[in-house]
Amino acid sequence: MTPQASRKGSDAAALTIRVDLGRNGALGPGKIRLMELIGKLGSITKAGKALGMSYRRAWLLVDSLNQAFREPVIAKQMGGRGGGGAKLTDLGQRVVGSYRAIEAAAALAAQRELETLQSAVAAKPASRSRRDRTASE
Amino acid sequence: MTPQASRKGSDAAALTIRVDLGRNGALGPGKIRLMELIGKLGSITKAGKALGMSYRRAWLLVDSLNQAFREPVIAKQMGGRGGGGAKLTDLGQRVVGSYRAIEAAAALAAQRELETLQSAVAAKPASRSRRDRTASE
Repeated sequence: MTPQASRKGSDAAALTIRVDLGRNGALGPGKIRLMELIGKLGSITKAGKALGMSYRRAWLLVDSLNQAFREPVIAKQMGGRGGGGAKLTDLGQRVVGSYRAIEAAAALAAQRELETLQSAVAAKPASRSRRDRTASE
Repeated sequence: MTPQASRKGSDAAALTIRVDLGRNGALGPGKIRLMELIGKLGSITKAGKALGMSYRRAWLLVDSLNQAFREPVIAKQMGGRGGGGAKLTDLGQRVVGSYRAIEAAAALAAQRELETLQSAVAAKPASRSRRDRTASE
């Protein structure tokens, strides 16, 4: 189940989940997507690029993620120019799995109340609707 | 139940919920808190100030909220210098209630998985843990 999937361009109310990790920051859709893409593409640089993120930003996010958990969630492999490969560690895979499970459980639990809220939303887009979404959410 | 209450300064993983309203933006803890404080304090300016928000920002958020729903969620009463009073409309009260209900249902549904995630979090704070939280989340 991917509660995020049908969101863009749709008027259906949908949940976005952020898990606050106390003093270790927060885990939201941007960081999780970056982790998933690193797992898929085997490269921090490529994953960042796929998300329209600068090289520097992707690497800073990876560093902050690795510091937030007991063990690294992303393993960097040394390489030549442009960086070597990278992959999710076992812990990284578990973290992504937990986040997606939380997201799915929350979406299911909130479904009826979301529909109530949806029925109150304007049919026309608000003229000032901005989406200041960042990967650090 | 207020899942937000014990978050700050704690290491317990906690959820933050954002409800995406399609083309009408998103509803997160900042806007909901602003609405609750307007209801309590009877003033947009005072509510904004209580959240450390500029006068301008609080009013812009109120305008965007009022445009996002079928009817206004905050009623402004005309007044003298510094603005008149303001209060939540019936719809505004229902929107706040729905959001808090979604938050509570999601927290309950995700509780076990959150504990799993929590057990993977570093005991010491990450050196780079920033909380870029804004009211527009």
